[in-house]
Amino acid sequence: MRIALAQYNYHIGNFEYNTAKIIRGIQEARDRQADLAVFAELSVCGYPSGDFLEFKDYIDKCYRAIDEIAFHCKGIAAIVGAPHRNSNSKGKPLHNAAFFLENGKVKQIYLKGLLPNYDIFDEYRYFEPATEFDIVTYKGKRIALTICEDLWNLYDNPLYTQNPMGRLAEKGVDFMVNIAASPFAWDHGGERKNMLSQNAIRYRVPLLYVNQVGAQTELIFDGGSMAINAHGGITHELESFSEGLLMIETDEMGRKTGTKPSPDADHDKKVENIYKALVCGLKDYFGKLGFSKAILGLSGGIDSAVTMVIAADALGAENVLGVLLPGRFSSDHSVKDAEDLAKNLGCPHKIISITDTTTRFEENLKPWFKDLPFDVAEENIQARTRAVYLMALSNKFGYVLLNTSNKSEAAVGYGTLYGDMCGGLSVLGDVYKTDVFKLAGYINRDREIIPVNTIIKPPSAELRPDQKDSDSLPEYDILDQVLFQYIEKRKGPDELVQMGFDKKLVNRTLKLVNTCEYKRYQTPPILRVSSKAFGMGRKMPIVARYLG
Amino acid sequence: MRIALAQYNYHIGNFEYNTAKIIRGIQEARDRQADLAVFAELSVCGYPSGDFLEFKDYIDKCYRAIDEIAFHCKGIAAIVGAPHRNSNSKGKPLHNAAFFLENGKVKQIYLKGLLPNYDIFDEYRYFEPATEFDIVTYKGKRIALTICEDLWNLYDNPLYTQNPMGRLAEKGVDFMVNIAASPFAWDHGGERKNMLSQNAIRYRVPLLYVNQVGAQTELIFDGGSMAINAHGGITHELESFSEGLLMIETDEMGRKTGTKPSPDADHDKKVENIYKALVCGLKDYFGKLGFSKAILGLSGGIDSAVTMVIAADALGAENVLGVLLPGRFSSDHSVKDAEDLAKNLGCPHKIISITDTTTRFEENLKPWFKDLPFDVAEENIQARTRAVYLMALSNKFGYVLLNTSNKSEAAVGYGTLYGDMCGGLSVLGDVYKTDVFKLAGYINRDREIIPVNTIIKPPSAELRPDQKDSDSLPEYDILDQVLFQYIEKRKGPDELVQMGFDKKLVNRTLKLVNTCEYKRYQTPPILRVSSKAFGMGRKMPIVARYLG
Repeated sequence: MRIALAQYNYHIGNFEYNTAKIIRGIQEARDRQADLAVFAELSVCGYPSGDFLEFKDYIDKCYRAIDEIAFHCKGIAAIVGAPHRNSNSKGKPLHNAAFFLENGKVKQIYLKGLLPNYDIFDEYRYFEPATEFDIVTYKGKRIALTICEDLWNLYDNPLYTQNPMGRLAEKGVDFMVNIAASPFAWDHGGERKNMLSQNAIRYRVPLLYVNQVGAQTELIFDGGSMAINAHGGITHELESFSEGLLMIETDEMGRKTGTKPSPDADHDKKVENIYKALVCGLKDYFGKLGFSKAILGLSGGIDSAVTMVIAADALGAENVLGVLLPGRFSSDHSVKDAEDLAKNLGCPHKIISITDTTTRFEENLKPWFKDLPFDVAEENIQARTRAVYLMALSNKFGYVLLNTSNKSEAAVGYGTLYGDMCGGLSVLGDVYKTDVFKLAGYINRDREIIPVNTIIKPPSAELRPDQKDSDSLPEYDILDQVLFQYIEKRKGPDELVQMGFDKKLVNRTLKLVNTCEYKRYQTPPILRVSSKAFGMGRKMPIVARYLG
Repeated sequence: MRIALAQYNYHIGNFEYNTAKIIRGIQEARDRQADLAVFAELSVCGYPSGDFLEFKDYIDKCYRAIDEIAFHCKGIAAIVGAPHRNSNSKGKPLHNAAFFLENGKVKQIYLKGLLPNYDIFDEYRYFEPATEFDIVTYKGKRIALTICEDLWNLYDNPLYTQNPMGRLAEKGVDFMVNIAASPFAWDHGGERKNMLSQNAIRYRVPLLYVNQVGAQTELIFDGGSMAINAHGGITHELESFSEGLLMIETDEMGRKTGTKPSPDADHDKKVENIYKALVCGLKDYFGKLGFSKAILGLSGGIDSAVTMVIAADALGAENVLGVLLPGRFSSDHSVKDAEDLAKNLGCPHKIISITDTTTRFEENLKPWFKDLPFDVAEENIQARTRAVYLMALSNKFGYVLLNTSNKSEAAVGYGTLYGDMCGGLSVLGDVYKTDVFKLAGYINRDREIIPVNTIIKPPSAELRPDQKDSDSLPEYDILDQVLFQYIEKRKGPDELVQMGFDKKLVNRTLKLVNTCEYKRYQTPPILRVSSKAFGMGRKMPIVARYLG
């Protein structure tokens, strides 16, 4: 059987766009002699659709789209993901379903059995899990069709009490098809490939995997759709972060030698993959919202520099405006470094001094501040004044402001709410400072785009004389390790000390992270590139008092 | 049997505080001759604990607290809520459990069977639902112990496929005990009472209900712990929004006449209950975070006036600083109305003119803005300049800034991000404008606290000459009805038109709501008083294009 794997970028709620794209995919697949075209999980409405799934109108539109797509399935079959109403009188009102379309009609509907409800996933909010699973028979082949998480219950201590693929395998299977909406994380690709490969090995049949591609706000889907032979070797693979249609002859799968997933691939390609993911995420945020131009504050530091490079790559250099906003404590090299960067990239830039404005604020506050010493209040006035200028330009000319905070800062609250924490999208909010340096190295791999001085000077917010980040924070080398273990690996204070970290440093860091939830609550959406990003995938109560 | 229902206010993650409080409750109950003391769901760690539940250290601390509490259960038994590790090799790592403590030890552990995972609930994120349910036998009585949602599967089309209480009833029961963490919503109290009453009627035994009280960030728990006889009549009830220990003689329950829940109670007491809930929410936000003083911008309008009254009630008038920040377009009456309010309440106030600062911004932007017409950019400069002043005072003196936006504004995006949308907590963000007027009426029920002029003048942001809200928004009377049906009732565009709303108005309103998700993403936590508040209970994708 000849099968087309369609790795496409959908737009949540945009039924017209998604339906047209799927129908074009079916037509192209038929033109290329495919028997079956396979599209991603919930491709009809986009994933994740959130609480739109609670609207009757939204679900009605899904069914209408399925009917329209089915109408075009003549001389070819298709597998398309969409919600399906629960016909049982008990349980949640919907299922997460895969529709098998043939001869202009819905032939069979497969319902997802394992519903992820951790990290960024909350499928149990909307869907009832299926407990019965049937094989799809098509052109004499027995296909085990499953949806994403359905294949993820392989290991010891499984998260679910049932195993849909195990049940299907008992019924006799020629090959497996899995449709997915599995987001990128730099350390997740290898795990995903390995898990898919292990399924092929366990059930001794080939597996075709179709993931969606493109970003939906903070979630970046990398695609990575592939074919795996019955020995667990990857025989075909679509390029990540781009759309494509891959043709597979299932009868030839047995003869194809495949590559076993490499356990080191994630680490080897970490920086490159994060860079590509961020470009994809930024591009889709603007594209899907209908914006084309970005603005950001350029400090001469490494965070704004890396952000600007990614934005220029995603939107075109001419569409990214850098604004230098020197204040009383800005060093001369900051302005020069920022200007050099804009010139190297070919991005427009402006300079606006904030000094007379911050003086105005301070003068007007004098009757109340009197002779109290300069402190965080005056520091924040500078950061917030910059935000007022950036947002004024954004409002006047239709730029979207990019936030340039990194994950280390976001973790310990080293940033000014309504100041440098402003922006429509946080580009680096899931990248630790030490990894921001690595991104800069990657960007400069062929030539000096980010000025070397920006990379080698000690990080500073320049909000008071001779300030350095290291005045108030541990060195990033150590800090980032503690943060990674606490945030990504959920290690508690005792475990961290047992790992060899200094107890005082651990307590101080965990306290900072926990007491800054109120700040992170108000940050922009953060492009997610790790397995635990701040935002929708990490839910912490603001008023808690724990390790704080 | 004599049972003490302990309606207490817990602090998430604060094990020392919660444990000491529960032990004091057990001692008081024993002093008052109780056989059993009952505490709320997850009382040991506080509800909701969020992703802290994923930390080994957090769960270890829960067990240690249970041991310590059990040690004090001598001559009395207690029911306490805490997470319990799943001993099965399959499924989520935890259960949501009720520990029955007796003779210094854990005697029995009941596991929750129905896990709410809608609106603000996400229990399936952490817990595995139980499928086996056992009676607790104590002093010759057969007690059906359940946890919150376990009793909520009574009606047709139930959300769950199993019914724990039905299973327990088959085993023979003398009375039911339900421990809960059920948050307040103005239209939920009647539904809750009715559902509890229906359980008593169906299973023909009395029911003792213990809910937690107090606020955890945006969630306000009203308590409302009660005893219901076997005919569904409420015989005893603790006061809402306050702590208390209620003693019940179960043997006398049959002789007590109870009151059947009134279907109109929610509507009759709506405004009063919302007011009390907001005072409770504001007080606990400050108390649990260790703050005592609030600051807010006073515009002379009704939203900031109502917010100030609630803050003064919660924190004491002397701890609430009102700042008047008149700008170029502020009317004289705005300043006078705001001053009158502060005087009526006895709150301190300051006046800072923003005009010279906004002029500074505009002058410095002149080279780029040139002769472009005055628009939203200049409007927002005013709102953002005010925020810089308020946050400077907040930073210098340790005030928490209160956000004064109402739900109607938040819905349609009528507010300035990083301007009037700033604040540590949104007090009125779940109260529609028409209900803000009702709150003002309630506040003024005995004397004029909010100046009448503030109430009767047409709402205006005063960011351009003679501006009125009605210039850019439909009249609030109609707007709020459409918003309520769309947000609370999840009615789609066709349904709204069928209900009689104007099609153009519907389309315009829904488009505004959907395209402003990016703004609401960055608003402060909103005190939740309705069944569908913006924030954690409403998840909408920012980049969607649906009805927008």
